[in-house]
Amino acid sequence: MQGAAALLFDVFGTVVDWRSGVAREAAPFLRRHGIAMDPAGFADAWRRRYQPAMEAVRSGERPFTRLDILHRENLEAVLRDVGCDPAAIPEEEIDVLNRAWHRLDPWPDAVAGLARLKTRFIIAPLSNGNIALLLNMAKRAGLPWDAILGAEVAQAYKPRPEAYLRTAEILGLPPAACMLVAAHNGDLAAARACGFGTAFVARRTEHGPDQATDLAPSESWDVVARDFGELADRLGCAR
Amino acid sequence: MQGAAALLFDVFGTVVDWRSGVAREAAPFLRRHGIAMDPAGFADAWRRRYQPAMEAVRSGERPFTRLDILHRENLEAVLRDVGCDPAAIPEEEIDVLNRAWHRLDPWPDAVAGLARLKTRFIIAPLSNGNIALLLNMAKRAGLPWDAILGAEVAQAYKPRPEAYLRTAEILGLPPAACMLVAAHNGDLAAARACGFGTAFVARRTEHGPDQATDLAPSESWDVVARDFGELADRLGCAR
Repeated sequence: MQGAAALLFDVFGTVVDWRSGVAREAAPFLRRHGIAMDPAGFADAWRRRYQPAMEAVRSGERPFTRLDILHRENLEAVLRDVGCDPAAIPEEEIDVLNRAWHRLDPWPDAVAGLARLKTRFIIAPLSNGNIALLLNMAKRAGLPWDAILGAEVAQAYKPRPEAYLRTAEILGLPPAACMLVAAHNGDLAAARACGFGTAFVARRTEHGPDQATDLAPSESWDVVARDFGELADRLGCAR
Repeated sequence: MQGAAALLFDVFGTVVDWRSGVAREAAPFLRRHGIAMDPAGFADAWRRRYQPAMEAVRSGERPFTRLDILHRENLEAVLRDVGCDPAAIPEEEIDVLNRAWHRLDPWPDAVAGLARLKTRFIIAPLSNGNIALLLNMAKRAGLPWDAILGAEVAQAYKPRPEAYLRTAEILGLPPAACMLVAAHNGDLAAARACGFGTAFVARRTEHGPDQATDLAPSESWDVVARDFGELADRLGCAR
């Protein structure tokens, strides 16, 4: 809003639809290996291990480890959970599935909205995804980022304050000149606590048709918009 | 070349004309403070302190320090050299001059060449410049980078091997899938020693009309091109 120079975006769920993308990539893998599991359920199971894996880094139990590696560990754990021995599957095949997170599709409004926002603001991801993941995703999907920032650059996972504060510092900006755009109230609360502006864009099917969380803003965020097009309108970007 | 997935670019001298840009910004400052010095000579004097400042980081004498801070220290030293007390000048005015490096103009072929190269390759700076510097420069000049990489992300200054090797690793690529594009033979030699491909583009007036260095390739680099347009031709990019 007034004073924001940079818009930083949560990515998984806010910019891209991870559940459909992972399910699409998992489906042929599951079929090939005779794993009788709904691909969307497989995506959910993989994603359920996401926060606990990062928590080991946040707590200092393990050094900063990029998300591609955490995703890979989590994938092997999920395969074991469904009775599949990952060691019996060719390495390359697991690598390809692991990089499903590099090939997620954006929500329909994302690319056009970002292009408009880019005319007035620095736009960059502030994601827990690693640089290669976010870069390959952007290249494939046409996300017009000005830079790839986030956990790997800050060496800290959200919602640790370092993830937000180091990103502002790297940009040479005070936190008040940075605004986080996210579909997750918890992420926005952490950003606000660091002095960032906040913009909430609900993504009502991120977790599928029965989603029960993050359907509405939980606080009075600086901006609440239906999608990135409305966000661009609200922030005064030309159509 | 064959097999290259990412083109990494030296920036100061290769993509942008730092000497003219710094001189342009220094001229009114020097006039205002009655410093009788040719602005291009001032740019040269400032730049002469660049390698020694980074050497203190490379040698481990000081921790990694981003270039904006080294530039600022060097600027104050140059001012003292010409008999001007930087403490007598308003802080803000020195900051503005220090950020002259964020406002350098690209060589005339750079933006169009990068746009063509971007259609086939990941393109990113691999510069000793820090992220904010390179991002502000790109935003102003329209440099269409896919990501902002380089010393601050790798936490190492070229020509230390870590600067090249960590960049490849961050991209998830083997060094052989990375090619450095530079106007400096020394930078290319260091990149080649790390397994990178190499492309030389001479910038014959980087140091002004009397330039005596880097006028021609000193080794058989993988590609030698007159400018970024010819580089795009040689790497098979559509016009």
